[in-house]
Amino acid sequence: MLNKDELIQKIEKQRDLSRAAILTMTTLSESGHPGGSMSCIDMLLSLYHTMNVDPLNPHKEDRDMLVVSNGHISPAVYTALACSGFVKLEEAVSEFRLANSIFEGHIEPAVPGVEWASGNLGQGLSAACGFALAGKMKQINNQIYVIMGDGEQQKGQISEARRFAKKYQLNNMTCFIDYNQLQINGDIHQVMPQDIISNFKSDGWEVIEINGHCISEILDAIDKAKSVDAPVMILAHTVMGKGVSFMENKEKYHGSTLPKADCLRALEELKVDFDFNHYENLRKEAIVSCNRSEYPVKEDNMISLTDSPIRVYTKSTDNRSAWGNALEDIAKMNHDSKTKLAVFDCDLMGSVKTNGFQKEMPENFFQAGIMEHHTAVCAAALSKMNVQTFFADFGVFGIDETYNQHRLSDINETNLKVINTHVGLDVGEDGKTHQCIDYVGLMRNLYHFQVIVPADPNQTDRAVHYAAMHQGNVVMAMGRSKLDILTKENGEVFFDENYTFKYGKADKLREGNDGALLVMGTLAGNALKVVDQLAQEGIKLELWNVSCPVKADEEMLSSIAQKKIVFTYEDHNVNTGLGSIVADQMMNRSLFTKLVKFGVENYACSGTAEDVYKYCKLDIDSLTDRIKTSLNR
Amino acid sequence: MLNKDELIQKIEKQRDLSRAAILTMTTLSESGHPGGSMSCIDMLLSLYHTMNVDPLNPHKEDRDMLVVSNGHISPAVYTALACSGFVKLEEAVSEFRLANSIFEGHIEPAVPGVEWASGNLGQGLSAACGFALAGKMKQINNQIYVIMGDGEQQKGQISEARRFAKKYQLNNMTCFIDYNQLQINGDIHQVMPQDIISNFKSDGWEVIEINGHCISEILDAIDKAKSVDAPVMILAHTVMGKGVSFMENKEKYHGSTLPKADCLRALEELKVDFDFNHYENLRKEAIVSCNRSEYPVKEDNMISLTDSPIRVYTKSTDNRSAWGNALEDIAKMNHDSKTKLAVFDCDLMGSVKTNGFQKEMPENFFQAGIMEHHTAVCAAALSKMNVQTFFADFGVFGIDETYNQHRLSDINETNLKVINTHVGLDVGEDGKTHQCIDYVGLMRNLYHFQVIVPADPNQTDRAVHYAAMHQGNVVMAMGRSKLDILTKENGEVFFDENYTFKYGKADKLREGNDGALLVMGTLAGNALKVVDQLAQEGIKLELWNVSCPVKADEEMLSSIAQKKIVFTYEDHNVNTGLGSIVADQMMNRSLFTKLVKFGVENYACSGTAEDVYKYCKLDIDSLTDRIKTSLNR
Repeated sequence: MLNKDELIQKIEKQRDLSRAAILTMTTLSESGHPGGSMSCIDMLLSLYHTMNVDPLNPHKEDRDMLVVSNGHISPAVYTALACSGFVKLEEAVSEFRLANSIFEGHIEPAVPGVEWASGNLGQGLSAACGFALAGKMKQINNQIYVIMGDGEQQKGQISEARRFAKKYQLNNMTCFIDYNQLQINGDIHQVMPQDIISNFKSDGWEVIEINGHCISEILDAIDKAKSVDAPVMILAHTVMGKGVSFMENKEKYHGSTLPKADCLRALEELKVDFDFNHYENLRKEAIVSCNRSEYPVKEDNMISLTDSPIRVYTKSTDNRSAWGNALEDIAKMNHDSKTKLAVFDCDLMGSVKTNGFQKEMPENFFQAGIMEHHTAVCAAALSKMNVQTFFADFGVFGIDETYNQHRLSDINETNLKVINTHVGLDVGEDGKTHQCIDYVGLMRNLYHFQVIVPADPNQTDRAVHYAAMHQGNVVMAMGRSKLDILTKENGEVFFDENYTFKYGKADKLREGNDGALLVMGTLAGNALKVVDQLAQEGIKLELWNVSCPVKADEEMLSSIAQKKIVFTYEDHNVNTGLGSIVADQMMNRSLFTKLVKFGVENYACSGTAEDVYKYCKLDIDSLTDRIKTSLNR
Repeated sequence: MLNKDELIQKIEKQRDLSRAAILTMTTLSESGHPGGSMSCIDMLLSLYHTMNVDPLNPHKEDRDMLVVSNGHISPAVYTALACSGFVKLEEAVSEFRLANSIFEGHIEPAVPGVEWASGNLGQGLSAACGFALAGKMKQINNQIYVIMGDGEQQKGQISEARRFAKKYQLNNMTCFIDYNQLQINGDIHQVMPQDIISNFKSDGWEVIEINGHCISEILDAIDKAKSVDAPVMILAHTVMGKGVSFMENKEKYHGSTLPKADCLRALEELKVDFDFNHYENLRKEAIVSCNRSEYPVKEDNMISLTDSPIRVYTKSTDNRSAWGNALEDIAKMNHDSKTKLAVFDCDLMGSVKTNGFQKEMPENFFQAGIMEHHTAVCAAALSKMNVQTFFADFGVFGIDETYNQHRLSDINETNLKVINTHVGLDVGEDGKTHQCIDYVGLMRNLYHFQVIVPADPNQTDRAVHYAAMHQGNVVMAMGRSKLDILTKENGEVFFDENYTFKYGKADKLREGNDGALLVMGTLAGNALKVVDQLAQEGIKLELWNVSCPVKADEEMLSSIAQKKIVFTYEDHNVNTGLGSIVADQMMNRSLFTKLVKFGVENYACSGTAEDVYKYCKLDIDSLTDRIKTSLNR
């Protein structure tokens, strides 16, 4: 173990070498962000040398963690990781930004030592909150660090994260701001005047100001922050392009690289022994053969939870309550489980039915207020730490408002369960602004999110058990109203005690050969009534409930392709939901039959769900008429 | 004109009547938000009585404007508007939250006097900034007011709006916070501790504290705020449920209504002459026959701009530059136009090519920093005020990050042009987090947004002219790279000086009968090369450029349906873009032919666009091979 002076010496030796590497890799790739990398490198080196991390075991549970929110300083991160033994400098420099290399333009967790993929600014502090919560929940005495840019402070989500950190006393978190006072379009005070220190203090944070290029000050600040019983922001005064006279304090170098001649001049000025030509040759020959599976993105995250008994509902119930009950049931079984449970709420506990869980496990319930952007990211980060994490919200907030947060979580291979209630016109009197009629239309864009839209309380119950025991991102969507229990022809419960939810499987509710009707979610009960009524009139439709609209059910597709007409029926934008996906799935398989889609054709009015359905011709009578008209009956 | 004492008397008379109306309408509809309505009503009445507004001409240009950000206090808004002659109290009470009534659960601009539909919290201050900018740009000496909730202050977007207002010295803006200290889940200090005053002061705002139920203090504060040369926040201490003893300070009444018996008890306590039974009967008979067209949502917003000459490019150019040039060209023609131009940038001026406009019209260029959520809403609000407004950004910020803001703008029938660059894998080395591969997949969910993806600089030029002269929401998407000029078979420029962009029209680039290839955006040049090469080999494909993927081109659909195979080719998520829309459009019309989709199948790596396309099998060679394989050639 080095004493402080030795450590300072070591870092001071590495930093100019690092700057040389930063310049070389950006010059060789003719792209990337040298300026901020050079202003951050002293902090990064200091952190990696003092954090409790192990390059041979980068995912060890009690490690300190660093979230780099300004992911464009990847050259500095790779270099600092190389100096700490996580990666090889030659690989990083020669492969930087080459297709299929792990050394991407913005950092991603395929690189050992990188905890969180960033690049869209303003999210890192939220992710760090999630990691800090994990430390608290597991009673690991670790430290979570964040580096952010100064321009980035303009993003509102950071203020949300600050408040959350303060409320939950995340005193195990320290955040550095690279205060070089330049952003892409110039002086931060010109682009968007802001008093960053006042902003942080106004949210109850402690602030330390340092010279971000003085290793001794950096190390002292890291030490001091540990002893403060509050989240700490360290405002590090730095210089963009630090170390090279002609780059310093020039915003141009945020995203511009040096031509080779200038780079060589810069290396000379840095007075380090760094062989540009060697790296240039390496890069020319670079074959990116990286086997990404060597670098697991996911934590060792085997879910260890005990499933609870299921519930079978026989009386009309809202799916929301079924979700809340199942969650509470599972919580009761898992007070001492290795995998923890966590639930995040944004001031809608009663409506999204997380109050049962909150009573059962108050310590695992996080009331995040009206701060959805922060919550989505914080919950996602926590979900990577072997904490089975649920974020429950209204659809318009849990999906529409936070889509981009989920996109980045998906890239981060998180394990988040996003539970959305009040989707569709079923939201009723709250009207247009609250109509989440794009929950499938949005989430089908994210490659690794499973999308589940249960049809009744029994299917909801079983789907929640599935999600709770499953590793990976899941979004569930449910309406507001009480729903009838779906039944078999003989009147028995359809999703009975023998039913197990299987992701991607559609449910055949009725047989029939005059056509097929596919329904999703809230409207399944209506569909069943219509089909049973039509059967009385001699019109027999095959009825399928599609609870996993994004995944094709081959059996269903083969079957409906045999029918002369297929109807789809959904409380969702008719252009982007079940109907459009089925059209796509059929065309992809060259399965051709007449398809008629019933869904929401415009922003709709405010009223009881029943009335709104009528106005949109999605009620039982309208559906019956529309089907008969299509069948010429 | 009343003197101050007379005005106070008048408002004090109206306020208890208003509270009776609020309670009656929420009780009758058995839904809605009485608590906050009762804490806000004194402010609302005071504002409508002092603002320069005219119920007979609610859209007059020099009017003062009020944005109600906490749109759930609609009962209070409708009542206050009734007291000021904008609407009829009987209609508001009897139709509140009935399907197809303009008196929706959350306010919308179909109601005369309502300026902005709200309901998703945290956006109102941004909208008000847009209106305040309009006042400044038009040199109308008007005042813009905002009412917000206190729980709402947790939303990060509000901090962005504060900074913008301060930077642009929006001293014509005054914001009230209904500080009743309760939100849905209880005490705001418990749900999410926050020092609201410090937050505002830390962003340079002036703060006035008042008793929000003392009319005299409210009126004084309104006066005082006018004289302060900065944006002003008035923290109004209020009481949730104010005026009814058993409702006061109970968070339950945020969203719970009184049963009839309690409502009658409350009316008694309010000591007003308010005939509950009369309204109850009216409501029973209420036929919502409202002709919404009586209430135009849109401003008298006839665009009065002079179009500039077009440009014809003959050399490889990036679409970004073509957009920037066209914008600059149009600006040059319109220094004195009645319709103003405005451009918003989020710290990416050089990359999104708005620097030419910035030089030409610096006063109309708004540098909003890294604050996309605020910017999307602020720009949209401004676009309603006969200011032709462009918001330019990278796709991941201008679409993915701000989708929900655009959704609400669409509901608000704004006139925003969202110009997105760097979409697709064409973003290159910036990698996964910057890959906007869902620009169509998201925007196709919004009913009134036109979606344009131009194929080359010439089409971009013409599409920008179209958007600039067009009334309504438009999103444009373009990549980063320089693109070849699309040509006719004889080598002449395809989109030549005779070409006019027509929304919804696809462009037939080549004739052929062996199949059809549909391409969108950046990859059009590749497609053309492949088709011309295949033609040499005797394989003739009909090639269509689809620049408006969301709108069906019937001529194209009929034509491709005649082919034995149709290929789609896009730099977009293959599940949600051009290919999936074409599948949907064909199925909707029972046009059946084999469809093969080429697009992005997963989050991709970081590298030069060319290399990344190769890895994703979207480069020229891969496309050729894949087409030949499908054709068994």
